[in-house]
Amino acid sequence: MGGTGKLGAALARRWVKAGLAVMIGSRDAGRAQASAAALTQELGLPVAAGSNRATAERAGLIIVTVPYAAHESTLTEIRAAAAGKLVIDTTVPLMPPKVMRVQLPPEGSAAMRAQQLLGETVTVAAAFHSVAAHKLATDAVIDCDVLVFADQKEARTRVVRLAQAAGLRGLHGGALANAAATEALTSVLIFINKTYGVDGAGIRITGALQEPAEG
Amino acid sequence: MGGTGKLGAALARRWVKAGLAVMIGSRDAGRAQASAAALTQELGLPVAAGSNRATAERAGLIIVTVPYAAHESTLTEIRAAAAGKLVIDTTVPLMPPKVMRVQLPPEGSAAMRAQQLLGETVTVAAAFHSVAAHKLATDAVIDCDVLVFADQKEARTRVVRLAQAAGLRGLHGGALANAAATEALTSVLIFINKTYGVDGAGIRITGALQEPAEG
Repeated sequence: MGGTGKLGAALARRWVKAGLAVMIGSRDAGRAQASAAALTQELGLPVAAGSNRATAERAGLIIVTVPYAAHESTLTEIRAAAAGKLVIDTTVPLMPPKVMRVQLPPEGSAAMRAQQLLGETVTVAAAFHSVAAHKLATDAVIDCDVLVFADQKEARTRVVRLAQAAGLRGLHGGALANAAATEALTSVLIFINKTYGVDGAGIRITGALQEPAEG
Repeated sequence: MGGTGKLGAALARRWVKAGLAVMIGSRDAGRAQASAAALTQELGLPVAAGSNRATAERAGLIIVTVPYAAHESTLTEIRAAAAGKLVIDTTVPLMPPKVMRVQLPPEGSAAMRAQQLLGETVTVAAAFHSVAAHKLATDAVIDCDVLVFADQKEARTRVVRLAQAAGLRGLHGGALANAAATEALTSVLIFINKTYGVDGAGIRITGALQEPAEG
């Protein structure tokens, strides 16, 4: 959902290249078709497309990459189709024009808001907040970790693997509520980009990380 | 304030070694004296000590390193003495037993709560949330950046320099409200320590950072 935007298109491109089956959804099915056609032309691989609702119905796993202003409407649109599925929310609650200022919603985070909007039958994970979309859109190695949040370890593990398929190190970051950390950090990274003249600052977790037990 | 705790003692030690004049304050002046005496014995340099209020009165700059449970009482204790000064709050709003879960206070962050408790006459900055105290207590090079938050650039610059004096890279992170990011990230780092068997995970900001204009 939102696969016509920068982050969604970049993730779709990396996942298609990694051999995953990807469908692009949009409020405007025509835009989704155009976005999918562009990927097919570049990569020579099939990419499906359709409306948000139609692709959410067909997909086994849904990733939401929309601006915060479209968060509620998009989730409402896919709510019924998402029942019983995993939804990965990448939304950062940026409130223009003050995008360099942390402004978390009353629910604590966009991720917790998504869980409330989607209801208990949907498993919500949150990730990909810190990665610069314009870097992800290239084949470059990106110096940035992807922190993954969900209340279920199994859900986090699926997203960690998807991050790896996109060429990024995914790390378990704990409960869904913890998404507040990287949602908030996005405003800090935008501030750092401006203050230090950086073309897409990211984060790395330091320390000698060992593989966690699978679960 | 709180210089008898792990983080406070470790910062004091690094700053004394760097040649800065440090006073250690505590609710219990006797504990502060003992902590200062231990530093003096180790380093052969003078370290003053006293009650929180007495040291806050004498200091030009105050750093608060207390557990969240002592946040309100400590700030209330130093409020009058802090008028017109810079207070650096290191407090993370951890709520035991769920320290691996982000639980930001209604004010948005401990830093914003500190500003409310101290009042408008006090300049509040927030920093040092992500650095592991037990690593800071050694002479080791620490693989962790210090994000610094304050509404005034000049205040941030002072704290960035103090981080550098402690051997750490300090980075401007924007407005005081942005402290929510690293306060929240602390619970994520505790989760990562446990999940990946890390002895004190930290964070690095990636990207080619250029020096900001001084201000």
